[in-house]
Formats: sequence, structure tokens, C-alpha cells
Amino acid sequence: MASQKEAFHQASPTEAFLFNCWYVAAWDHELIDGRLLARTLLDKPVVLYKGDSGKVVALDDRCCHRGAKLSMGRIEGDCVRCMYHGLKFDASGKCVQIPGQDNIPPKLGVRGYPVVERDHLVWIWMGDPAKADPAKILDFPYMRDAGWRGHPGYLHYDANYLLIVDNLSDFAHLAFVHAKTLGGSEEYAFKSKPTAIDRLDDGFHVERWHMNAPPPPFHKKVVRDVGAVDRRNIARMHVPGIFFMETLFSPAGSGAEKGNLAGAKQYRNCQFFTPETARTTHFFWDYLHDYELHDANIALSLYHSMVAGFMEDKAIIETQQKMLEADPAFAMNAIVSDAPLVHFRRTLARMVADEREGLKAVAA
Amino acid sequence: MASQKEAFHQASPTEAFLFNCWYVAAWDHELIDGRLLARTLLDKPVVLYKGDSGKVVALDDRCCHRGAKLSMGRIEGDCVRCMYHGLKFDASGKCVQIPGQDNIPPKLGVRGYPVVERDHLVWIWMGDPAKADPAKILDFPYMRDAGWRGHPGYLHYDANYLLIVDNLSDFAHLAFVHAKTLGGSEEYAFKSKPTAIDRLDDGFHVERWHMNAPPPPFHKKVVRDVGAVDRRNIARMHVPGIFFMETLFSPAGSGAEKGNLAGAKQYRNCQFFTPETARTTHFFWDYLHDYELHDANIALSLYHSMVAGFMEDKAIIETQQKMLEADPAFAMNAIVSDAPLVHFRRTLARMVADEREGLKAVAA
Amino acid sequence: MASQKEAFHQASPTEAFLFNCWYVAAWDHELIDGRLLARTLLDKPVVLYKGDSGKVVALDDRCCHRGAKLSMGRIEGDCVRCMYHGLKFDASGKCVQIPGQDNIPPKLGVRGYPVVERDHLVWIWMGDPAKADPAKILDFPYMRDAGWRGHPGYLHYDANYLLIVDNLSDFAHLAFVHAKTLGGSEEYAFKSKPTAIDRLDDGFHVERWHMNAPPPPFHKKVVRDVGAVDRRNIARMHVPGIFFMETLFSPAGSGAEKGNLAGAKQYRNCQFFTPETARTTHFFWDYLHDYELHDANIALSLYHSMVAGFMEDKAIIETQQKMLEADPAFAMNAIVSDAPLVHFRRTLARMVADEREGLKAVAA
Repeated sequence: MASQKEAFHQASPTEAFLFNCWYVAAWDHELIDGRLLARTLLDKPVVLYKGDSGKVVALDDRCCHRGAKLSMGRIEGDCVRCMYHGLKFDASGKCVQIPGQDNIPPKLGVRGYPVVERDHLVWIWMGDPAKADPAKILDFPYMRDAGWRGHPGYLHYDANYLLIVDNLSDFAHLAFVHAKTLGGSEEYAFKSKPTAIDRLDDGFHVERWHMNAPPPPFHKKVVRDVGAVDRRNIARMHVPGIFFMETLFSPAGSGAEKGNLAGAKQYRNCQFFTPETARTTHFFWDYLHDYELHDANIALSLYHSMVAGFMEDKAIIETQQKMLEADPAFAMNAIVSDAPLVHFRRTLARMVADEREGLKAVAA
Repeated sequence: MASQKEAFHQASPTEAFLFNCWYVAAWDHELIDGRLLARTLLDKPVVLYKGDSGKVVALDDRCCHRGAKLSMGRIEGDCVRCMYHGLKFDASGKCVQIPGQDNIPPKLGVRGYPVVERDHLVWIWMGDPAKADPAKILDFPYMRDAGWRGHPGYLHYDANYLLIVDNLSDFAHLAFVHAKTLGGSEEYAFKSKPTAIDRLDDGFHVERWHMNAPPPPFHKKVVRDVGAVDRRNIARMHVPGIFFMETLFSPAGSGAEKGNLAGAKQYRNCQFFTPETARTTHFFWDYLHDYELHDANIALSLYHSMVAGFMEDKAIIETQQKMLEADPAFAMNAIVSDAPLVHFRRTLARMVADEREGLKAVAA
Repeated sequence: MASQKEAFHQASPTEAFLFNCWYVAAWDHELIDGRLLARTLLDKPVVLYKGDSGKVVALDDRCCHRGAKLSMGRIEGDCVRCMYHGLKFDASGKCVQIPGQDNIPPKLGVRGYPVVERDHLVWIWMGDPAKADPAKILDFPYMRDAGWRGHPGYLHYDANYLLIVDNLSDFAHLAFVHAKTLGGSEEYAFKSKPTAIDRLDDGFHVERWHMNAPPPPFHKKVVRDVGAVDRRNIARMHVPGIFFMETLFSPAGSGAEKGNLAGAKQYRNCQFFTPETARTTHFFWDYLHDYELHDANIALSLYHSMVAGFMEDKAIIETQQKMLEADPAFAMNAIVSDAPLVHFRRTLARMVADEREGLKAVAA
């Protein structure tokens, strides 16, 4: 695990995406007002829109005639019309009208993608449509639970999505990257350690306690009069790049680790990383809280704190991306706390390899 | 013709230019005031200027000594001096002076290109100079005819020139791209069709009537009080990318289709597409009218209407270029109205192939 | 030597650097105030800083853990800490701390480079450290001599460093590029010639007199009331790209060429070209004078004149770079005055080839 010069890079599927899984394509609010949303996902230009029926449609964003972008076109009912020569496509992608031409070749059309709108997220399946089972969408119940309040966020990264996954696999970076935002003190890296690391079939699960510590700035901003806290993070990362975290702050010494949650304040965080290309990423997130839900400014403050913290990550991660591109031969060196990261990359690489084997078998 | 998945792309010589033909290199007004015009044509950096004799000179824009640009130099008579180490070249490209050196190697120099200035256009021959016959320059008499008035235009496209040729090969796009500028209504695409499509040895000829239709916005702007019109477009496209169009608007039902031109207003349009590189294009045009010639504002209004319309094309065509570059494997699908386009691309591809065969034969 | 179509390009090691030699990495003033200076040298990202001991440190600017930039980190004593996960490296590059991990693999670390601070310059050795002998640093005594005063300069070029070396190998360009700044008149190119060109083992030495000429603008700006001058330049260029020049202006006819220096005013110029990449260059220089040393504005005026002149070079040289990149097949043509340039490029190419042979021999 901690062996030096491990060939991370060779193992990391930076260019090979996993296709047979659900990715977040958009927040639902990005499709209001009849918007044709052009978004590249896994290197494919896709157009997303809500037709008049309210159903979300996802099609290849390239007219099959001359390659114009359908997202520069016009919604008509649940169809979209290319505004170059007027070809019209239905919600499945089938061409249903060619102005000035009576016969439409039956196979003429663009690719359509399975999509599911759930809890304000629009999920898309970029692989084999026959395998697109909505039951496989990971559940994060807090966005539909009245006991929690948040504010949806989006950021674009000029970096491969796995570098962001890496970032979240070792919380020691809070101490150095986020000392003045999400972290608090460098003690977090030197004194606290994960109490549990579980390797999952599709990711990892990490639990970390930091006892009797000053509250981190983002928490102190919204809970002004707060003393030392016991801080607990329970985080899960799932393939392809889905992160859930349960955070708890309780008064130091109040016994939260034994189950006493009196005076505790909690957060629920979801983060979704969807490759735009091998070197750029769509990042969707929400950070929800469970107290003083009547006060809309708490969610707003937390949103702004997260943006500030993510911008600190982004500066480092986008620089990492440039360094890796400048010298693809660079072999990273694992340290002990990279255990979750290494397991995740191996797991994903195996799943990508399996998927490719499956494709070859079908072809043969 | 309308067979699907036709391999347009393989047939389209996006990178292979036709060299033995005349291209428009500049408007004559671009060379006034002793300007050294740097312009890349067919991937070659060329410098164009008018020497003191008034003759237009076109040379490789790269000093043969150390590669500095002659367009950063100085005109001396009909010569140009490189302002790095002072080498001087005459109008044929021959080096005639090296400061501090008495002997000039007789073959030292840069390539000169045949150029012809005619009707305000500067034509250049980028191929074998021995074949540069000015009689092969296509004639567009209206720019020297006092019965017509226009305003010369230039636009730069970030797209291969053939995508612009394609655009002009099917006027159905007027209905969708130019509804509010050059088109008028979507009827044009749904109801009108070319009445004649002729395959020429070096291009195509298309005629299209649209009877009893509202006048398009660009025409209505200059001819305010106008009712329904019969609209006729006769267009020709010639290799390598030269477009002429004769447009007529007559009062609806006045019998223009039978030759009665009473009350008709006419336009003559020339468009010249010269590849800068395989992915960028110089676009020269003029749009002339035959009425109220004393009023300079008509030509100006038409010029602005054309720019507005061309910017609509440009947005779509430059996006097409990006889509094709992003996925060179994309195979376009022909529809019935692509007949002229397909003929043009085949014709040009054959001429390019013949030219290459000729070069091989000479070399062998 | 003056044979045409000489294959300069093949001979020029544009991509192959000489590694076993000293390069200027920075001015000393760039490292004050605890600055971590990120600078790419010979395609390698390097971080330079002065630790608390005052010693200059140069390390690979890439953490060996996950590739973050050390220059985005923090100086601690003579060490630097990566501010991603907190790894700490000493002045040799060895990793001396991993937060949360007790055992540090002994070989974990980043590459350190030999550096020498001398006469306000920071020199770096990018090759085999065992060969890094400070005695090989070329001496330019004027920057430590109270009899001379200057002002340090830096410019960044978007061009291979050898194109800048070329520029300095033929002073005829003063007449055309710098007529209004450093040159004076075109006579310099037409009437004066080098009186001596010596081929050195590691470069060239050129001497050039221009008698009874108007003083060049940069000199006239600081010595207002000056008549015709005899001008002498003695220039040396050394591998890899180090230029020293001794310039003298004496009243025309005063006999400076016979050793009479009464009334002469002198300048000493050093220029250092360090490849950033194969297509970009760091350029350090100083231009010192030996008169009216109490007046700080003379050095400042000369500094501004040099910047103005170098910007004229930069416009031409960066265009040259683009021309060469656009057409790598372009073969330059040598003229007689290219003799020093040709000798320098051959000398350097041979040294690079020898260095590579040596590496192969070691490997075998």
C-alpha cells in the first residue's frame, strides 16, 4: 500500500470512462424556461431540455445531417428542431421531419440517452441503454427531507475528475489547504487519523474523529457562540465519483462518540463528479444542515463557505492537472493515508476493464 | 444521391487545396497608402503590396535569410526590404541587395506569385505560374457597370471554406437561419423548391422561385412600401469557391416568371471564399442593386443586412467546424436537397486528385 | 560558410539542451521577502527560494507525493512544505516529514539542483551534479566593480533562445531594427564591417569599428552635447547563451583605435539567455556605464533604451519563431555575415551531441 513509486498513473483510467453507470448531468433548475442546455459529458456533446410534457430529454447535440448543434435549435413540444436546415427530432432522437422532403429514411436520427429526474438532479446513462436501471441510482434522501435545508452548487474544474476524488479521500488536506475555511488547525492532520477505513465493492468508507478542537471557520460563521467541539466526519465515495458525507459537531466532551447527540449540529453533503472530458469535470454539490431551518441565510453562508473552500482545492488540483499533462511519465508516490485513494482507483480501473472486456465479447 | 451515411468527409478535400486556379487575395482598397498586407493564403504566408509603379506584388512573406516577415519590412520602389538584416527583394522575389556583401547568389530570393488586379479585386495564382492564364478569371461585370452600386465586404471565418460553400448550396437554410434578416418566412423551406439544378463541369447552377411571399426583411428595409413579392434566385457556384447570384423581386402575380420585369428590383451578389488554412477562410463579397443609384444609403443598408445575415451563418458554420474537428469520424447524412453540395464536393475532389496526379507524373 | 541552403535547422539543437553547464536562473532580488519563485528552466519546473540561513535552494517544483507545486507551499527554515498534504522537504530535496505518518521512506524526496549566488546572479546547474564546478561560471567583474553602474533587467521571449543568440551575432541588424534606438544610421550596415571574427572553443569573439558616425540615440539621450563619434563594439558569445560586450564612444578622430581614450565613454553589457522551453526563453541583462556614477538616472535611461531596443528585437524574433514552427521544413540561407552564428550553432550542436554520447556510454 505505502510502497513507493506505485504506478498510480498507469492504473488510473484518466481517459477511459466507465459508461454503464448513472452520472449527474444537471440540476433540474438548469432546464427551466425552455432552455436547451448544451453540456459535454464523457467527451460527448449532449443537449438536455424539458419538452412541453415536462419530461427531460437528452440527445446527441449534433444534427445527423451536417453536424450543426441542436442546442442552437428550437424546442417544439417534446421535439427539437435543428435551426440550420430545419430537421426535427423527437424525444427518442428519431428524425420526424425534413422540410421540403417527403420521405424520411426510417433510421435517420440522433442518439438519445436514458435520463431520470430525481430529487432535483438529472441523471444520465451514457452506456448501453438496455442496462439503464433507475434502481441503480444512489439515494441521498436529505434533498427531499424537510428536516434538512441546503443550496445547490455547481463548479467547473479544469482537471480530470479522479484528481477531485483523490482530494476527498484524505481529509488531512483540510489542515493545509483549508486552514482558514473548512479546516481549522493543522492539528487535524498531525493528531487525528481515520478511525475506520472500509474498502467497499464500489468505493470506500472512512470515519474520522477530531476531539476537543476549535470549530472550523465555516461552522463558526453560522454558529457564532461556539466553544471547542468534537468533530466527526463519516464519508463514502462511490464509483464513478459520488461522495456523501455526514458531519457532526458536538460540544467537546459531551460524549457524541458514545451516542449522546445532545447539543450536536449536523451536516449532510453530497458531491457528484461527472467527467466533461478526460481533463475537465462538472462538479455538482449540496451541503445541508439540520438546525434553524427557518433561517435561509444559514444555507447561503454554508454555500459561500463551500465555494471558498472548493476554490482552494481547485487552485491546487488544476495545477496538478497541468503538471501531469506536462510530464505524463511522472510516477506519484503513495503515503500511508492514500489507502482509500488507491483502493478506489483500483476498483474503478477493474470495472472499466471489465466493461471493455464485455464489449469485446459482444463484438466477437 | 440521398443515400444515407455517404462518406462526405472522406470525399471532401478539407486539407487538400486546388492550386492551379485563381483565388481572390484582397480588395484593391486594402493596398492603398503603401500598405504591406500580410495574408495567409492556402497555408502560405504571403505579403501583398503596390509598388511605386502601381503594380500589385505578391511574394512569400518570409525572408529567405532567417525567416523574418517581409510584411514587417519597407517598400522601396517596387521592391521590399526586410528590416531585420536589410536584404532587398524585387517584384519577382529576386534578392537584389545584401548590406555589407558584394556578391549576391543569383538564385537567392523568395517566391513570387502571379497577381491580377481587376474590377477592384486582387486575384492570385498559388499553383504553377506557367499555367496562370488571366483569361481563366471568372467575370462578374456588375462591379464595373455604372448601372449597379454596391459596397465591398470582408469577413474572416474560423471554418473550412467548403462548409461555407455547402451553406450556399441549399437555400432552404434561409428559412431557419435567416428568418429575420435575409429569409422571411419558413414557407421558403416548406413550399418552395429549386426549379432547376444543373451540374456544371466546375460547380452547379440552381434556380428557385418563391411566389406570392412576404418580402424578406433586408429588402423591406430599403424598399419600405412593398407588398407580397415573387422572388427569384439564380445562383451559380464555381470551383474553388466562387458564388454569383442574381436576385429579383417583382410584385406578386406581375408575371416575372414569364419575363415581365415591370416593377422588378434586382440584386447581383458575388462571394469569394479563399482558404487561409484548412480551418479558416477569407470571405470577400459585394451585394449590388440596380435602383435609386443616387442614394448611397441603399448600398450601405444592404451591406449591413448582409453582415447581419452572414454573422448568423458564421455562428452555425464555425460551430460545425468545431464539431467536425472534435470527432473526425462523424459521417454526415445527405438529404435530397444536398444534391448541388454533393456534386460540388465530388467535382472539386476530382480536380484536386487530377492536379496531384499531374504533379506525380511530372516528378516521375 | 556562405554556401546557400545550408541545413541550419537540422544542425540547430532547438529541442536538445546542453545540461552540463551553468545557466542564470534568477536575479538575486527576485528571491527577497521569502518568495518562492516558480520558474521553468530547460523544460523542468523548478522552485527557487532563500531559506532562513540565506542560502539559495533550487528544487523540482513538484511534490513527489501527488504532483502539487512546492512553489504554492510555505518556507520553513531552509525547508519547504507542500501545502496540499503537508509533506516537508529540506534544502537537498529530501522528505523530512509526512503529517500523520511516522516512517518516512529514506529515498522519498524531490530533485535538488546545485546553485551559486554570485554578483547578484543566481546560477543553476541542470545536469550531472557531480560535474557542477563553480569555477566554470564565466566572470563578468563589472557588476561588483564600484567603477561601473547599471540596472538589472529581465524579459521573457516567446522564442527559442538560439534565435536571440543569432540576433547578437550580426550587428548589421542595428541599422535596420534599431535605427531610432540602439543603432543610429543604416551606414552601420553598409559601411562598417567586423574587423575581427575569432572562433572560440565555446563561442565567438567579434570586433567592429564605425568611425566618424553620428552617436546612436540611446547614447545621445544621456550625453546630450555630443558630436560625431568613433564607435567600437567588442562582443563575445559563449555557450550556452552568454553574451558580453564592451562598447566605447570616443570623439571622432581622437585616435581611440590607437589607444587614446581621452574623452571616451564606455559601456559594459552582459546578457544571459536561459531556455525556459524549446520555444520560450528567460533573458537577463545589465548595461553598465563608467561615467557620472553619482547620477542614478543615467543607468535608468540606459535601462529604458535597452528595453525599447530589445522590444524591437522581440517583435522580429518572436515572429521568426512562429514562422519556423509553421513550416519546420524551411531551410534558412546563410549570408557572409552569418559566420559567427554558424560557428556558434555548430559548436553547441557538437557539445550537445558529446553530452548525449557520454550519457549513452554511462548507460551501457
